[in-house]
Amino acid sequence: MSNLHILCDLPFSGAALQLLKDGTSPHQLSFSYRAPGSSIYAPMVDPAMDGADIAFGHPGAGSVLASKQVKWLAVASAGFTPYDTPEFRKTAADRGLIVTNASHVFANACAEHLLSFMLAQSRALLPALGNRGDKAEVSQIKEKATCLRGEEVLILGFGHIGMRLIELLVPVQMKVTGMRRRPKGDEPISMVSLEELPGALAKADPVVNVLPDNAESAHFISTERLAQMKPGAAFYNIGRGATVDQEALMAALNSGHLGAAWLDVTVPEPVPADHPLRTTPRCFITPHMAGSHRTFMDGLARHFLQNLRLFIEGQPLLDRVM
Amino acid sequence: MSNLHILCDLPFSGAALQLLKDGTSPHQLSFSYRAPGSSIYAPMVDPAMDGADIAFGHPGAGSVLASKQVKWLAVASAGFTPYDTPEFRKTAADRGLIVTNASHVFANACAEHLLSFMLAQSRALLPALGNRGDKAEVSQIKEKATCLRGEEVLILGFGHIGMRLIELLVPVQMKVTGMRRRPKGDEPISMVSLEELPGALAKADPVVNVLPDNAESAHFISTERLAQMKPGAAFYNIGRGATVDQEALMAALNSGHLGAAWLDVTVPEPVPADHPLRTTPRCFITPHMAGSHRTFMDGLARHFLQNLRLFIEGQPLLDRVM
Repeated sequence: MSNLHILCDLPFSGAALQLLKDGTSPHQLSFSYRAPGSSIYAPMVDPAMDGADIAFGHPGAGSVLASKQVKWLAVASAGFTPYDTPEFRKTAADRGLIVTNASHVFANACAEHLLSFMLAQSRALLPALGNRGDKAEVSQIKEKATCLRGEEVLILGFGHIGMRLIELLVPVQMKVTGMRRRPKGDEPISMVSLEELPGALAKADPVVNVLPDNAESAHFISTERLAQMKPGAAFYNIGRGATVDQEALMAALNSGHLGAAWLDVTVPEPVPADHPLRTTPRCFITPHMAGSHRTFMDGLARHFLQNLRLFIEGQPLLDRVM
Repeated sequence: MSNLHILCDLPFSGAALQLLKDGTSPHQLSFSYRAPGSSIYAPMVDPAMDGADIAFGHPGAGSVLASKQVKWLAVASAGFTPYDTPEFRKTAADRGLIVTNASHVFANACAEHLLSFMLAQSRALLPALGNRGDKAEVSQIKEKATCLRGEEVLILGFGHIGMRLIELLVPVQMKVTGMRRRPKGDEPISMVSLEELPGALAKADPVVNVLPDNAESAHFISTERLAQMKPGAAFYNIGRGATVDQEALMAALNSGHLGAAWLDVTVPEPVPADHPLRTTPRCFITPHMAGSHRTFMDGLARHFLQNLRLFIEGQPLLDRVM
């Protein structure tokens, strides 16, 4: 294959940059940085996209569509909402444009983050760490603490993060059920359909949401679905904030129906200091960081280079989403 | 076997009490409660011990030694320090007294508690939950967050808790090394001897302490061993507080050498509000609750009944320690 032009809009530096430079040689690698603090998804048509064969990062969907030459869009996150539109999917299909995401790079960190949430909740970690030696309080904390073993977890959405979570949970010995919109039949756990969801929600504690953000999943966690959950259940979200009706979630926490909510994703992000989510009882928020880990830029570079080799060889790409 | 007299000093109630009553029938079950708030280990000779064949709970070591009839002491915790003396061991051996602990009942909760500590540390959970929307702080938190996968964990002490932790860690894909004073050769992980410990401490992060409390383990975590640890390493203790030189631990945290200490066990317990451990940086304390879980009295009853059946049949008992 003749030399390819790779356009990257990610702020690589240090060892990860060197890795990327070495691995893409002799192909042409150029950078089109976004201003710091801008949205991760560039909204405008990028003139630098002209002549690029591969776009790596978060280019504007319009730029990719306007460029006739881009053959592979390597999205550098697990989510790919701006590209997940009927127009983009149709154009990609018509043009033979390959789209990959980077869910393998983030899946393990997301699954470990989720497990940190679930164990902090079951072990009553926050009240326990807050105890200052009061013996009556110690007794109460001990009565709250429980084990994940034997509990029934329901996982909504079933991509790489869900799969990695299931791997981590094998020795924990929970009863694991999953729900995905289009079950493929090869899932390693018991799956329920959308029709069976109310029954599954009524039995599960915890309920884990890793749904992607798209037209079908908007406000998937609604007043109705929250009401279907078991009283006292804990709810976790590391998918996308838009999949949850936050007003309904706050109401379910305020009424006492929901036991706890642990959210890594919200609308907006980060949650402002004076936002009502901040004062909602038993609502625990981390700032959209579940996929973060110290070496994730290295991981992104390695993932891209692995796919570049497959792309050049004409093999199926990892994490292909279109 | 003729009717046995079982003397129990644990405050069973509700379903767990019924389970115990049903399961021990037709043998004689009687209770000798300690005053609430007293030490879990009764120090005095208990006159009720006369005539008991089996002692279940935490009877005074003197009571057990003074009673010629007790054939089996079922200690209701994982630790059994008051009985772990040369005098007690000799008398038990001479008399054929069987001693079991309840480590199987506590092992899973302890291992889940440990994992909650390890994940809270690696995911920077406490600073993340404390963030109130400050974007510069969010960036710092994301740079701190890491994954357990690929890290090198050293486990000091190797009983049921260590084994259960190893099970939980299998899919996490850490490099696991263990240290026990008397390796048996059948450990499923790479083991180091006491002589090899300095080298192992220099490489490990995290270091997990599940050593029992006895003459050999007192202040095992000393100034010297803390200095051998990798700078920035996180240390975890859910064994016994007495195995750590707390002055040395506080110094290692204050100097910045140690990255963090997560302690479920301390001297004293609970740690008073004005104790210097409370103001030591990066020192996180839960009030000796790692083994607690909502249904642990049920678990204790089931464990005892399982061993009672084995005892009556003359089979080897579970969790026999003498």
